[in-house]
Amino acid sequence: MDSQHGSPTIGVGMVGYAFMGRAHSHAWRTVACAFDLPIRPVMAALAGRERAALDEAARRQLWAATDTDWRALIARPDVHLVDICTPGSTHAEIAIAALEAGKHVLCEKPLANTVEEAEAMAAAAAAASRRGVRSMVGFSYRRTPALALARRLIAEGRLGNLRHVRAQYLQDWIVDPEYPLVWRLQREHAGSGALGDLGAHIVDLAQYLVGEPLTGVSALTETFVRERPLPAASSGLAAVADGTAPRGPVTVDDAALFTGRFPGGAIASFEATRVAAGRKNALRIEINGDRGSIAFDLERLNELDFHDHTEASATAGFRRILVTEPDHPYLEGWWPPGHGLGYDHTFVHQVRDLMHAIDEGRDPEPSFADGLQVQRVLAAVEHSAANGSAWTPVTHEEPPRQVPPRSGTGDAFVVVP
Amino acid sequence: MDSQHGSPTIGVGMVGYAFMGRAHSHAWRTVACAFDLPIRPVMAALAGRERAALDEAARRQLWAATDTDWRALIARPDVHLVDICTPGSTHAEIAIAALEAGKHVLCEKPLANTVEEAEAMAAAAAAASRRGVRSMVGFSYRRTPALALARRLIAEGRLGNLRHVRAQYLQDWIVDPEYPLVWRLQREHAGSGALGDLGAHIVDLAQYLVGEPLTGVSALTETFVRERPLPAASSGLAAVADGTAPRGPVTVDDAALFTGRFPGGAIASFEATRVAAGRKNALRIEINGDRGSIAFDLERLNELDFHDHTEASATAGFRRILVTEPDHPYLEGWWPPGHGLGYDHTFVHQVRDLMHAIDEGRDPEPSFADGLQVQRVLAAVEHSAANGSAWTPVTHEEPPRQVPPRSGTGDAFVVVP
Amino acid sequence: MDSQHGSPTIGVGMVGYAFMGRAHSHAWRTVACAFDLPIRPVMAALAGRERAALDEAARRQLWAATDTDWRALIARPDVHLVDICTPGSTHAEIAIAALEAGKHVLCEKPLANTVEEAEAMAAAAAAASRRGVRSMVGFSYRRTPALALARRLIAEGRLGNLRHVRAQYLQDWIVDPEYPLVWRLQREHAGSGALGDLGAHIVDLAQYLVGEPLTGVSALTETFVRERPLPAASSGLAAVADGTAPRGPVTVDDAALFTGRFPGGAIASFEATRVAAGRKNALRIEINGDRGSIAFDLERLNELDFHDHTEASATAGFRRILVTEPDHPYLEGWWPPGHGLGYDHTFVHQVRDLMHAIDEGRDPEPSFADGLQVQRVLAAVEHSAANGSAWTPVTHEEPPRQVPPRSGTGDAFVVVP
Amino acid sequence: MDSQHGSPTIGVGMVGYAFMGRAHSHAWRTVACAFDLPIRPVMAALAGRERAALDEAARRQLWAATDTDWRALIARPDVHLVDICTPGSTHAEIAIAALEAGKHVLCEKPLANTVEEAEAMAAAAAAASRRGVRSMVGFSYRRTPALALARRLIAEGRLGNLRHVRAQYLQDWIVDPEYPLVWRLQREHAGSGALGDLGAHIVDLAQYLVGEPLTGVSALTETFVRERPLPAASSGLAAVADGTAPRGPVTVDDAALFTGRFPGGAIASFEATRVAAGRKNALRIEINGDRGSIAFDLERLNELDFHDHTEASATAGFRRILVTEPDHPYLEGWWPPGHGLGYDHTFVHQVRDLMHAIDEGRDPEPSFADGLQVQRVLAAVEHSAANGSAWTPVTHEEPPRQVPPRSGTGDAFVVVP
Repeated sequence: MDSQHGSPTIGVGMVGYAFMGRAHSHAWRTVACAFDLPIRPVMAALAGRERAALDEAARRQLWAATDTDWRALIARPDVHLVDICTPGSTHAEIAIAALEAGKHVLCEKPLANTVEEAEAMAAAAAAASRRGVRSMVGFSYRRTPALALARRLIAEGRLGNLRHVRAQYLQDWIVDPEYPLVWRLQREHAGSGALGDLGAHIVDLAQYLVGEPLTGVSALTETFVRERPLPAASSGLAAVADGTAPRGPVTVDDAALFTGRFPGGAIASFEATRVAAGRKNALRIEINGDRGSIAFDLERLNELDFHDHTEASATAGFRRILVTEPDHPYLEGWWPPGHGLGYDHTFVHQVRDLMHAIDEGRDPEPSFADGLQVQRVLAAVEHSAANGSAWTPVTHEEPPRQVPPRSGTGDAFVVVP
Repeated sequence: MDSQHGSPTIGVGMVGYAFMGRAHSHAWRTVACAFDLPIRPVMAALAGRERAALDEAARRQLWAATDTDWRALIARPDVHLVDICTPGSTHAEIAIAALEAGKHVLCEKPLANTVEEAEAMAAAAAAASRRGVRSMVGFSYRRTPALALARRLIAEGRLGNLRHVRAQYLQDWIVDPEYPLVWRLQREHAGSGALGDLGAHIVDLAQYLVGEPLTGVSALTETFVRERPLPAASSGLAAVADGTAPRGPVTVDDAALFTGRFPGGAIASFEATRVAAGRKNALRIEINGDRGSIAFDLERLNELDFHDHTEASATAGFRRILVTEPDHPYLEGWWPPGHGLGYDHTFVHQVRDLMHAIDEGRDPEPSFADGLQVQRVLAAVEHSAANGSAWTPVTHEEPPRQVPPRSGTGDAFVVVP
Repeated sequence: MDSQHGSPTIGVGMVGYAFMGRAHSHAWRTVACAFDLPIRPVMAALAGRERAALDEAARRQLWAATDTDWRALIARPDVHLVDICTPGSTHAEIAIAALEAGKHVLCEKPLANTVEEAEAMAAAAAAASRRGVRSMVGFSYRRTPALALARRLIAEGRLGNLRHVRAQYLQDWIVDPEYPLVWRLQREHAGSGALGDLGAHIVDLAQYLVGEPLTGVSALTETFVRERPLPAASSGLAAVADGTAPRGPVTVDDAALFTGRFPGGAIASFEATRVAAGRKNALRIEINGDRGSIAFDLERLNELDFHDHTEASATAGFRRILVTEPDHPYLEGWWPPGHGLGYDHTFVHQVRDLMHAIDEGRDPEPSFADGLQVQRVLAAVEHSAANGSAWTPVTHEEPPRQVPPRSGTGDAFVVVP
Repeated sequence: MDSQHGSPTIGVGMVGYAFMGRAHSHAWRTVACAFDLPIRPVMAALAGRERAALDEAARRQLWAATDTDWRALIARPDVHLVDICTPGSTHAEIAIAALEAGKHVLCEKPLANTVEEAEAMAAAAAAASRRGVRSMVGFSYRRTPALALARRLIAEGRLGNLRHVRAQYLQDWIVDPEYPLVWRLQREHAGSGALGDLGAHIVDLAQYLVGEPLTGVSALTETFVRERPLPAASSGLAAVADGTAPRGPVTVDDAALFTGRFPGGAIASFEATRVAAGRKNALRIEINGDRGSIAFDLERLNELDFHDHTEASATAGFRRILVTEPDHPYLEGWWPPGHGLGYDHTFVHQVRDLMHAIDEGRDPEPSFADGLQVQRVLAAVEHSAANGSAWTPVTHEEPPRQVPPRSGTGDAFVVVP
């Protein structure tokens, strides 16, 4: 084995090259430099609709080839894994096509814009799994070391029986009522507002940390600014500072509040908003059990606060763990203690875990079934909000069971050089 | 006017001498030493049922006389103001009797255990007010300088249009399932659990800070530990550490979660709990408006975090205001900048404001009508929780309007020496 | 024993009624209401030079009598303890006179303005101690519960061998160069500037926490604003806002930086300043040992951060102990967990401990010998600063040893009612 | 211009592949993907002494070629810039050779182990600059966005006249006395201990932020653990847990404390230590001026605390700026507000700025002259510590002036494809 040909490689094709595309490109480019991997990803091809922007993105992010048609990208023989970074409304079609073509899939969150699409995707993923083809949904925050540590502490019983989950995802980018009516504020394109964008993250994280799915919710949602300047007008913003720009209706929520219950008895509160002035990316989670508690804030992503309730009261208190030690999750790939990680590192961890799952012939987490479950929670939230906050069960059809792959190594698309 | 007889005095009679009695005694004893007052309180008499404990409390706290019958205390000619520090189930009877006897009343929170009692009290207070007799409910946290400053900033428009209120009151004193079944965990004595004890505070504060009453709520409540050792057994705790102590049912909530709406458009979330391991007294409130935000935590009571959303983004951020400056509310009575206050100072501020209101012949705040409003919110919360979290309006009968007192000085019981 | 005559009493006479006088009055008035005391203080008399202000202070703070001559106060038969709250230049004369008259003494810090005065005071205290007369210097911050807890942890070995002490006392009240030339900025009255005022506190605390005296120092001091408006001029401040007010030289330091060594091997850094813009009362101390560390900031006086270095690295971190538990120092007198204390509570703790020491016939801490030791450190700092930061040993004559009092109860001035 | 040939490229050759080598590799690999660059770096060759490890490092980090002789690397025609990531004792020889060969140089900090070496390097850099060859020393923390913002605020006058600098760099990796005697604890290899490793960073940062060089220092240093197990022994650690391993003397400092002065009048305190238990990477800097203050802690590297002293006192306080806004330094290359960066991003910023400087034909900062200045401060610190903390001036020979490059583009080694 020489230095050029040390491990098998896998060809990655990515669809989409905006914000998420940049973050995923960084991950694909970096992962094998930071971690020991059984399979080394190769950035084979990038797909997008606009030729000039596509070429520029590929050049910048070091993708070897380009396609303006995602179907062509899926069909490429050098692409064995499809990474979907497009808006939610397109996820189902691309993901199902890729899975049916036998390509592994990494799909950005939310899995889809509707429960129906998500169900079709989960079914396709289950079928593909039986053929050794893997799929994963990109709830990347699970791979924040502090949250992975929190999950470990909970799984080890350090928090005991869980009582409370309080989860908030607070941003403020549309506080200004003159912020234009971008597509994310239109239901036909975005599905929902803060709920799907931010709420999906905290629902997934809460379920991941607790280790159980929510059984029911009660919700209210609100749109504080109901009309906004049309983007076309706002592009000539200086000219229309007098407020005379044409306006259109905002058709998604600015904020969503909901409560929920877990089967093990814990109760939960959730809040997702884009108008919490001064909170830039405050994904905050606290969990209290009868033996301990944890608290986390994404604005300080290298820290986990942990309270051990079994300690003597005179010296008990929330301790601020700097999650940068060698024995913390994912830290073996990075820097000495106290040298923090950033937002982009979580994407590196995500593809690291995906490479291991493919190599080991098992389905990675979070699965499309997990993504579907989140979608069902969001649908229940919208149902409750539309029905006077009435308690709304979250349906839990048994997720499609994973069938052990025919080969133990899931090698369909692992190319040994 | 000489140094012994500088200002009019008012005789105070207090009923109850437990935790709240100690805090109120401290306030009566201290207020005239810290603040310039138009009327100086005199600690005339203390009432309680157990003679020995009563005498010890009076000796310790410097009350001049004692009565084992609160009716006798009300009847004393040297008592012009009755301070009620007993459990909630007794508030209505004592307060109404005192008001009818023409004595000013300060009544601990919650105003009562039921809406019906609170209505009777508010009516009595309204009637008394027409005779120049004042009443106040002891939501003392309003007098925390940081929260009074928050109210000032909101009233000045520094937060703009309010969007979000998130209020939590988290304690942890009954996390241990072997903690005994004290009266506070029995509905017949306590009315409710965390809801009435802690939830009442955050409902009052939220309404005070926003400047509006809640119009409706959706709620869920939970009792995690449904049976606890009977206190008698637990008094011999060592003997029964094997868990064989007789147990009884917990009949109040351990925790309550609810959402709400304000008439001006803000939405709110509330949480009150006694099982948030590691949170000792975490009364936390955040409010976001379209021009700014505030955040507060009672565990750091001398600080207010304030974000001014009109600042340039490069230097904007939540600033930690140490609320100990001379121009901060109530600070004229205390120490130089940076020298913090404690929990007990808020009670001093409460009676300071009460003395001024009596002197000026106006009703102090929070009024019994405010206490009734809080009670209505709590009742709506319990109704919603019992009905599948269904949205439940909070009835808002017009609070009894204050009629200007016949005399401008409310001097009925102000004794000029 | 009835409620009026529960315990022996001791008559207190206080000299001075400004900032410190107010804080001490609060303590004398409050201590027996909060704590079980073997001796109950009686606020017998207050001394000061200006008759009108003295009477007003006595009336406000509830002192029973007044004297415009401190010698008369010392001579009063109902005064058994003299509490000195005057500027440092007067301490020696008053304290020595009181001790020689057989009165216990509580003296505000710094003990004196010079080492010579402090030596005389320590000698007088040692002599008095042999006659059962007690003395104490008012380094009240030792009685902050969080710092008392820190001392307990260090004494128990929870920090192991101490390596580092970093102590800062940062204020900002003279940042403005137009702040007038008050007496505190004149050497002839104040002795020194930030060094004696703030530095004395952190030197005492560091020595108290470490449990050893400093053996040497290296220092630099600085006066940033060397001329300031004369106070007379500044009293007509509006008129002279054009900067034409007469000015005088500032003759004390604005800031002092120094390093030091402890005999056990720890090294220390100190900083005292009045021009740290934005720091109001930031007395911060961190101590690192080879088994653990503590960190404290007086701006958050109810908290102690503690790191246990013997814990597993995956869950180690500085824990924020809310020092409000029943088993924390001094908390038995106050409120439930999480209900914070303020600046003034430390003065209550100080006189509580003094009452116990008098009752038990032992010398309280910090003693005049401790105050003298601090004075020697300050003198060494000034010497080093004047000599190119040269290392300057702190002389440590053996402090006068306490001789056991002839009677076991130190009852000379304890009056049994 | 097509996607393969968009901009000129520059061939990079790196010497060393340990911790710093990994961080620099990440930067070279990432910079052109994140930022618009006028010149695109190409990772041409890696040099190191051990063939197997070198090949593995090159394979992992994507270097195109390898050399076991750094002289061969310098001589390569495809190498136009030499990046030196070896221990400090080798810097001078490599850097001077590279500069004399006409190659640009990026050299890790500290610039050298002695002032003499640093002087030779600065002279070589000055000579090279006259030929259009650039050099830079890797004080990467200057490129932390929060610290770059702090510098901007100071340069804009937002802090006014500077009074105080307090800088600490606290780590804890050698608290355990059984930690072995690695080369970093031996003077002959490391030059000094915490002083050169950590102190160099805070000296550079303090001088960068203040905008002035230190003029003098007073210092003390300490080695708490004077003997440690030899690494050979410690490699069989389990066998020698009885403490019988052979030991050798620690010949560098564990900690250094020093004070200093700036020409503009500010005074400073510094502390560098490796035994501050619980502090993992606490590079903390506070600066107070007469118009404002800043505070920073590398353990929370995305935050800058800023106090504006010109604000009204009622709403003044340290504001926590989350330094992730588009108008913050370096953020144009990264993620939306609130999405934090990590330790490694600063290295990306460093090479970004280096590419711009080369393109624009100007010397980048920090220069070798800056590195020499830091070395002089460290030498003065050691001199003072060895001489009873005596005040020791820092010599400031006029740094070699930059001569404008002969061509405006510094294009000697910019290869246009």
